[in-house]
Amino acid sequence: MAKDKKLVEAITSMEEDFAKWYTDVVKKAELIDYTSVKGCMVIKPAGYAIWENIQHELDRRFKETGVENVYLPMFIPESLLQKEKDHVEGFAPEVAWVTHGGLEPLQERLCVRPTSETLFCDFYAKDIHSHRDLPKVYNQWCSVVRWEKTTRPFLRSREFLWQEGHTAHATAEEAEERTKQMLNLYADFCEETLAIPVVRGQKTDKEKFAGAEATYTIESLMHDGKALQSGTSHNFGDGFAKAFGIQFADKDNTLKYVHQTSWGMTTRMIGAIIMVHGDNSGLVLPPRIAPTQVMVIPIQQKKDGVLDKAFEVKDTLAKAGLRVKVDDSDKSPGWKFSEQEMRGVPIRIELGPKDIEAGQAVIVRRDTREKTVAAFDEIADKAAEILETMQTDMLERAREHRDTHTYIAHNIEEMKQIADEKPGFIKAMWCGCQECEDAMKEEVGVTSRCIPFAQEEISGVCVHCGKPAKHMVYWGKAY
Amino acid sequence: MAKDKKLVEAITSMEEDFAKWYTDVVKKAELIDYTSVKGCMVIKPAGYAIWENIQHELDRRFKETGVENVYLPMFIPESLLQKEKDHVEGFAPEVAWVTHGGLEPLQERLCVRPTSETLFCDFYAKDIHSHRDLPKVYNQWCSVVRWEKTTRPFLRSREFLWQEGHTAHATAEEAEERTKQMLNLYADFCEETLAIPVVRGQKTDKEKFAGAEATYTIESLMHDGKALQSGTSHNFGDGFAKAFGIQFADKDNTLKYVHQTSWGMTTRMIGAIIMVHGDNSGLVLPPRIAPTQVMVIPIQQKKDGVLDKAFEVKDTLAKAGLRVKVDDSDKSPGWKFSEQEMRGVPIRIELGPKDIEAGQAVIVRRDTREKTVAAFDEIADKAAEILETMQTDMLERAREHRDTHTYIAHNIEEMKQIADEKPGFIKAMWCGCQECEDAMKEEVGVTSRCIPFAQEEISGVCVHCGKPAKHMVYWGKAY
Repeated sequence: MAKDKKLVEAITSMEEDFAKWYTDVVKKAELIDYTSVKGCMVIKPAGYAIWENIQHELDRRFKETGVENVYLPMFIPESLLQKEKDHVEGFAPEVAWVTHGGLEPLQERLCVRPTSETLFCDFYAKDIHSHRDLPKVYNQWCSVVRWEKTTRPFLRSREFLWQEGHTAHATAEEAEERTKQMLNLYADFCEETLAIPVVRGQKTDKEKFAGAEATYTIESLMHDGKALQSGTSHNFGDGFAKAFGIQFADKDNTLKYVHQTSWGMTTRMIGAIIMVHGDNSGLVLPPRIAPTQVMVIPIQQKKDGVLDKAFEVKDTLAKAGLRVKVDDSDKSPGWKFSEQEMRGVPIRIELGPKDIEAGQAVIVRRDTREKTVAAFDEIADKAAEILETMQTDMLERAREHRDTHTYIAHNIEEMKQIADEKPGFIKAMWCGCQECEDAMKEEVGVTSRCIPFAQEEISGVCVHCGKPAKHMVYWGKAY
Repeated sequence: MAKDKKLVEAITSMEEDFAKWYTDVVKKAELIDYTSVKGCMVIKPAGYAIWENIQHELDRRFKETGVENVYLPMFIPESLLQKEKDHVEGFAPEVAWVTHGGLEPLQERLCVRPTSETLFCDFYAKDIHSHRDLPKVYNQWCSVVRWEKTTRPFLRSREFLWQEGHTAHATAEEAEERTKQMLNLYADFCEETLAIPVVRGQKTDKEKFAGAEATYTIESLMHDGKALQSGTSHNFGDGFAKAFGIQFADKDNTLKYVHQTSWGMTTRMIGAIIMVHGDNSGLVLPPRIAPTQVMVIPIQQKKDGVLDKAFEVKDTLAKAGLRVKVDDSDKSPGWKFSEQEMRGVPIRIELGPKDIEAGQAVIVRRDTREKTVAAFDEIADKAAEILETMQTDMLERAREHRDTHTYIAHNIEEMKQIADEKPGFIKAMWCGCQECEDAMKEEVGVTSRCIPFAQEEISGVCVHCGKPAKHMVYWGKAY
């Protein structure tokens, strides 16, 4: 089993260099590769299969709440992008511009969508006339482009995949309700499916989306103590509606502006899965999102009956609804174990001639390496049970890591010390003014992650200026 | 039921003006809408739901043959596009060029992918080293851009949705086998799922894909007698591999070039569904692709028990695996019938107080308007049976239309007469030279659709030049 070591040695340990560990895992687990197109990546089959499962599960949850999918153009005429002032200021510096179509220059240049609020508004202005046309609860799955200067696989790239929901409502209350509903949907999805615990809250005015009245966010904590914004939901009020003239005749026959929301989640969640659950042997996938949940690895597979039994076990598990494969390649078992671990397959089943004689096989959990011997007639039940336990344990472990890396600062000195010595979330009181928020970045090196819905009163005053505090805020260093 | 008429009158009859009928249906069935972005469309929920079903069914069939999904960048650096000579000549005149990223001009301009052969080649050149890395059987779902001058909803737009498969193989035989396999997969999908009969064949050298050694195609016939290229599969041989240096160490330790294929199907198939199956009341969706297969329409829905029964029927059908909705809006039943017909929902169930008293409801087929009375305890079985019959009948009807609009021409005079008077496919012999093919376009106004795999010997000589014929060819006017 010499090769076993070789594959593991191929990745840097996370204690030594977390950033290098991350890119090593991304490459060795064959999730992504760099391309000749600067700042853009190839998502390889093992990575894309995770995204397909995310899409499938999110889409199912969306549709349960009445969301319908649509597709809008990838191009935005410059004049359309400029209609909402805050929005254009936020996005214009980082868009890609198309200036020629075929051999001719365009009359008006087009940007490749960095997000599609303006297109949806243009569409809604034509499509909405009466209260009968409301609400519109549309979503699209697509890629968007933001011309980032520095990029990292999944976390920040010039093009990335996402979904963007855009809704229009008759009342402000309904829009607010939808904004919160989608944030909670994202939070539940992260916790139930990705086993990633999140803090639900609101962005400060400084950190909110360009053009939004309010931005809600879920924030998760990576293994290295850095925060990751994991999903956002924006309430636009009627600001875009006024800029684009989206009006409807209400039941009382008066013309009113609609109230709008948007919300999105991206392929960066694959990065979150890696950085929350991974270890020094590679990726660890939560069972509910894993494209392959069980890898059956035959030992001495050339011996009579071993491969037959391996495929028999596979069929039994597949019939029970598990996603299962057999690794019948000509590599050594040790190498296969390492590959299964590197790729984060939640459990493996080891199966050799002696096991077969004894009517059993060994189930090994990817996260704890715990081994369970299971008789063939109960193997599907055992495997399903272990996968369920593993899913729950992974969430609990991540929650524990998050909680033990969440610190309370009573004053700015404490805050500086924590920020320097203990990577994680810092909970501290804030007066609500941008000067203090800017100073936190300048003096402490942290940004506001969110004003959590679950408020605690640590003290009565802002840690920076000492004036009366308005909110308890989560601060941190972020990806 | 006055409103009934009004909605139907909203569309032009197909006999009067087929092109106008088509755009009317596309609009009134709420499949698509125009946008402020010239040549680009919005695919609305009713249209996108059809595409989702196409995706789902094609993807399932792909994966059964070992296809894995990936995602490559949407941008192609100009130097990469230029690596294969024929390919760049074919596509460069119709691509959109990105020249600025953010506020700065790019060092090298990027085109928005019109198709991704060059990107896959660049990726494969880095990813393929050994025969163990082969075959690669990858696919991506994405949008592509071609700067068309004239556009039509679904059939031709500057941006459209599609899938593009790209494979690499160790041998020429394996590549040829995959090319044919995917063409047959498309053909089976069209016939079994979309109820659209197709002619399977090969494109002439003039009509083949830029850079391909051979292009296979499936061609279908629309209701107006025009042809639609419905799916293509290309064998590139080792041409791209040589241009991009994609080599592998074979089992005998020699370096060899890979053999490649690509194959694609697009949202234009939604246009095909409309133009093959639609009628003067609107869209007619084949049951297997219809997002909603059954619309339950209550009559006198305000009367006690009517709505309850309607939802009970809906639940019964849903449990039996049918996709079913109740139209409980406050519109008149006549208006609801018209809407259900306009949107092509395959069957409706009419259900009023008298029906409920009699313990039955009326099932109406969208295509034939045939009515079947079904007792409540057998209504799910009946509905499922009618949907199956309708699917089969639609394919048969389309096949009959295609066959009665396929003509044989023995000489150029006959061919001209048919082309002038009888819209449809024309089968005629051809010598194989491009001069005669060009002349057909010039003199007869038709293009070669394909050299069908199922050859017939109509005569021994080319209808144009009279020299010995090489192939029987399908000719026609095409979208």
